Amino acid sequence: METPKPKRTAEEIYKQACTVIPGGVSRNTVFRRPCPHYTASGSGCYVTGIDGVRRIDFANNMAALIHGHIHPAITGAVIEQLQKGTAFTMATEVEVEFAQLLCDRAPGFEKIRFVNSGTEAVMAMIKASRAFTGRPKIAKAEGAYHGTYDFAEVSQTSNPSNWGDIDRPNSVPLVHGTPQGVLDDVVVFPFNDIERTIAILNRLAGQIACVLIDPIPHRVGLIRATREFMEAVYKWTRENGALLAFDEVVTFRTNYGGAQEDYPVRPDLTALGKIIGGGFPVGALAGRSEVMKVLDPRESKVLFPHSGTFSANPITMTAGRVAMELFDREAVLKLNALTKTAVARIEEAVKIADVPVSVTGAGSMFRIHLKALPPTTYREAYQTAETAALVNELLDYLFFSENIVLINTFACMFSTALSQNEVDRLAEAMLKGFRLIKPKLEILQ
Amino acid sequence: METPKPKRTAEEIYKQACTVIPGGVSRNTVFRRPCPHYTASGSGCYVTGIDGVRRIDFANNMAALIHGHIHPAITGAVIEQLQKGTAFTMATEVEVEFAQLLCDRAPGFEKIRFVNSGTEAVMAMIKASRAFTGRPKIAKAEGAYHGTYDFAEVSQTSNPSNWGDIDRPNSVPLVHGTPQGVLDDVVVFPFNDIERTIAILNRLAGQIACVLIDPIPHRVGLIRATREFMEAVYKWTRENGALLAFDEVVTFRTNYGGAQEDYPVRPDLTALGKIIGGGFPVGALAGRSEVMKVLDPRESKVLFPHSGTFSANPITMTAGRVAMELFDREAVLKLNALTKTAVARIEEAVKIADVPVSVTGAGSMFRIHLKALPPTTYREAYQTAETAALVNELLDYLFFSENIVLINTFACMFSTALSQNEVDRLAEAMLKGFRLIKPKLEILQ
Repeated sequence: METPKPKRTAEEIYKQACTVIPGGVSRNTVFRRPCPHYTASGSGCYVTGIDGVRRIDFANNMAALIHGHIHPAITGAVIEQLQKGTAFTMATEVEVEFAQLLCDRAPGFEKIRFVNSGTEAVMAMIKASRAFTGRPKIAKAEGAYHGTYDFAEVSQTSNPSNWGDIDRPNSVPLVHGTPQGVLDDVVVFPFNDIERTIAILNRLAGQIACVLIDPIPHRVGLIRATREFMEAVYKWTRENGALLAFDEVVTFRTNYGGAQEDYPVRPDLTALGKIIGGGFPVGALAGRSEVMKVLDPRESKVLFPHSGTFSANPITMTAGRVAMELFDREAVLKLNALTKTAVARIEEAVKIADVPVSVTGAGSMFRIHLKALPPTTYREAYQTAETAALVNELLDYLFFSENIVLINTFACMFSTALSQNEVDRLAEAMLKGFRLIKPKLEILQ
Repeated sequence: METPKPKRTAEEIYKQACTVIPGGVSRNTVFRRPCPHYTASGSGCYVTGIDGVRRIDFANNMAALIHGHIHPAITGAVIEQLQKGTAFTMATEVEVEFAQLLCDRAPGFEKIRFVNSGTEAVMAMIKASRAFTGRPKIAKAEGAYHGTYDFAEVSQTSNPSNWGDIDRPNSVPLVHGTPQGVLDDVVVFPFNDIERTIAILNRLAGQIACVLIDPIPHRVGLIRATREFMEAVYKWTRENGALLAFDEVVTFRTNYGGAQEDYPVRPDLTALGKIIGGGFPVGALAGRSEVMKVLDPRESKVLFPHSGTFSANPITMTAGRVAMELFDREAVLKLNALTKTAVARIEEAVKIADVPVSVTGAGSMFRIHLKALPPTTYREAYQTAETAALVNELLDYLFFSENIVLINTFACMFSTALSQNEVDRLAEAMLKGFRLIKPKLEILQ
C-alpha cells in the first residue's frame, strides 16, 4: 500500500502537524509545550511512545479504556466483526444485545439510545429534557465539564474575573461568540451548596427542563455530590416538574450501575460514554421509558426525531458489549479496591514527603490537589497559573523520569490491566515527585 | 466468552429491542413497519440479512461507505492498528498523515480538525464561525439536513402548515421544546433563490456569522446549488463580513476535492464526515488558516477551546486514510461514470414504463422523485403522505422482491465495489418497480 516511512521524532511530526492542524493537535487535551507526546502502541496498562519508551498508563484515553489497551477478548471480537462489516444502513442484533446488557445494569435505565460521543449523549439528554417538558432552560454546576454542546459548556471554565457572586453565579460562555440566547437559557449553581442552589432554581421554577449533574465532576475537583445535595435537588425537580439528568460519561465506571448506585434518588435520564465503547467512539442516553418515549418513531408526533450515521455501529457495539461483560460486579469491586490502595499509598507519600497535598475521587478514579485540604467547591479547586505550572512540572517529571502517564488535571483513571506492581511504582514516583516540587509548593501555600 | 445463541427472526429481535430502545431502533433512519431489517454481514457491494438473503447495497450506510463493505486494504490496516491500540490520551502520527492527505485534496482545506460525527463537524463549524466573527446568527437553507445540532436543525422538516411565506420562511423547530433563542438565531432562506436569499440576508447583515450551505442538499431534492446562487451568496458574505460554510459531509464524495471543486468560489470552512472515516465514526472541520486559528491552543486567548475523547482516534484515522488513498482521482472519475450510466439506465426505464418519474443528483449519488419534472426547490421536493407511502411501497418491493437496498428517501449512494452488473440489476428492478406502482402513481399526479 505504502512505502515504509523513516521514523520521525515528535518534533518532526509536530512540525508537520502545525502546518495542517490548528495548534498541531486534534484535541486540546493532548497539547503540551514544546510538542505533544506521540504514542506508537499500547498493551495492557502500558503505552509505548514513538521514542520507544514504555510507560505505565494511568490516563486510559481520558478514562475511556476500562481494560487498558488491546484486551484480547475485545480485540478478538472486533476482528470477528470487522470481517462482517463496520456499519450498515440497517440495524444489527448486537445493538439490541448491548442495549439489554446496559439496561440490566441500572434500574434507572429502562430504555437506551446510542450515539457517537459523550458530547452527543449530553446534547441528546438536554434535547430530550426540553422535548419532554416543553421548557427551554437547563441548570448546571459551575465548573462542571459536560462535552462541547454549547449549552452544556456554560461556565465550564469560569474564573475569578468573571464568575460573579456565588449567590448567582454568572453564565460565562466558553467559546467566543456564544449567542446570548444560549447563556440566557443556562442557569449556573454552586455544586453541593444546597441553600444557594435551591434559591437559584426557585427563581426560574417552571422554566427549567432539567438539572444537569455529574455526580462526581472532575473539573469541580472530582468530589462527590453529597447525598443531601442530591436529595434536595431531586426533591426540587419533583416539586417543579423538571427532570434530573445525570452526566455519567466518566462516572459510570465507579460502580456496576454507575455513580447513581450510591444515591437513594434515581435520575430521569443518564448520559453515558467513555468505557461503554470498549475503546471505540460511543455515547448513549438512558432513562425512564416515559421520558425516552420522546424519541420513539412509532409515535404519531415524534417530539424528538433523532438519527446518526454511525450511531450503534456494530464495531462499537461489539467492543462495548465485550468490555462491559468483562467489567462485571467482581471486576468493578476489584478495580475499586486496587484504586483505594493506590490512594492510600499516595496519601502515605504525602505524609512522608510532608507536603500540602490532598486526594479526592471515587471508585476507580482520583485526582491529586496541590493543597493541604481537599477542595469542596469549584472555586476552591480553581488553580492559579502558578499552581497549574507546578502541576505541569510534576506531570513532566512523572512522564519523562518515571515513565508514568497521568491525566493533565493530575488525575488517574484506573484500568483493570493495572496491578499492585504499577500501584507501587506510582506511589514511589509520586513520593519522589512531591519531594522535587516541595520547595516551590511551600512558597505557593 | 458466550454460549452461541439460537438464531432469531427480525420480529423476535425487534420485540426485545422495543423493551430496551425507544421504538426499538437506535437510528430513526432504520425504522420501518412492521420491523427493521437486521443485517448479518456485508461484503463488497452486498449485504446479507439475518434472513440469509444477499442483497445489493446502494445505500452504503447512508452514503458513508465509499468502498462498500470490508474492503481488504481497509480491514487489513485496521487489524494492524487494532494490535497497537484503538485510542490513547496522547497524539498519534496517523492523525497528522491523514490531516495532510485531506488538506492536499482541496485548496480550501488549509487546516483541519477531526471530530466524531458529521453532527459534531457542523456544530464545530458553526461555533468556529461565531468565534471568528463574534456574531450570533447563522443562515441556512429551508429543508437542508445538517445533523442534530439544534441550530443546524431549524426548518429541516418544515411543511406547508408551518413553513410560511417564501419571502421570509419561518424558523421551524425540529425538536419540541427547542429554545426560542435558537430559532431567533437561525435565519432560513430558499435554496437557489438568489433574490429572496439576498433580501433575507440583507435584513440581518452584521449579525450573521456564517451562511451554511450543503452544495447538493439531499432533502432539498439532491439538487445542485447553481453557480450563480453560490457566487451571489459568496459575494454577499465578502461584503458583509460573514463566512461561507459548506456542509460537505455527504457531498465530499462527488469530486476528488468535494463538491466545492465545481464552483469558482471557495468556502471559508467545510464540514466533513461519512466517507472520510473508512467505515468508522468520523467528522472533520477544514478551512482557512486564519479562521481555523480560533481553535489553536497556542494562542494567548483561545477563542474556541475544543477537545473530544475519541476525536482523531487511530482506528478511524487509519481506516479513513486508506479509504481516501484508494479513492484517488481515477477512482472518483470511474465511480462517477458508473453512476452516470445507472442514472441513464433508470431514465430509460422511466421512458419505457412511461411513468412520471425524474432523477436528480451529482457525482456518485442520485435521488429518484415520483414526479415528471425534477424538483427545483425544497417546497417542490416536499412529499405528501401519499407520495411517501408509495415510495415506501417501492422500497419494500425492491428490498424483498429484487434484493436491492436503497436509502429511504429513494436515493442511491454508490460505492466503488459496484460494477456494471449491479447497475443492470438496478435498472431492471426499477423498471419492474415503476410498472408495479404505475397505476397508483398516475392517480397521484
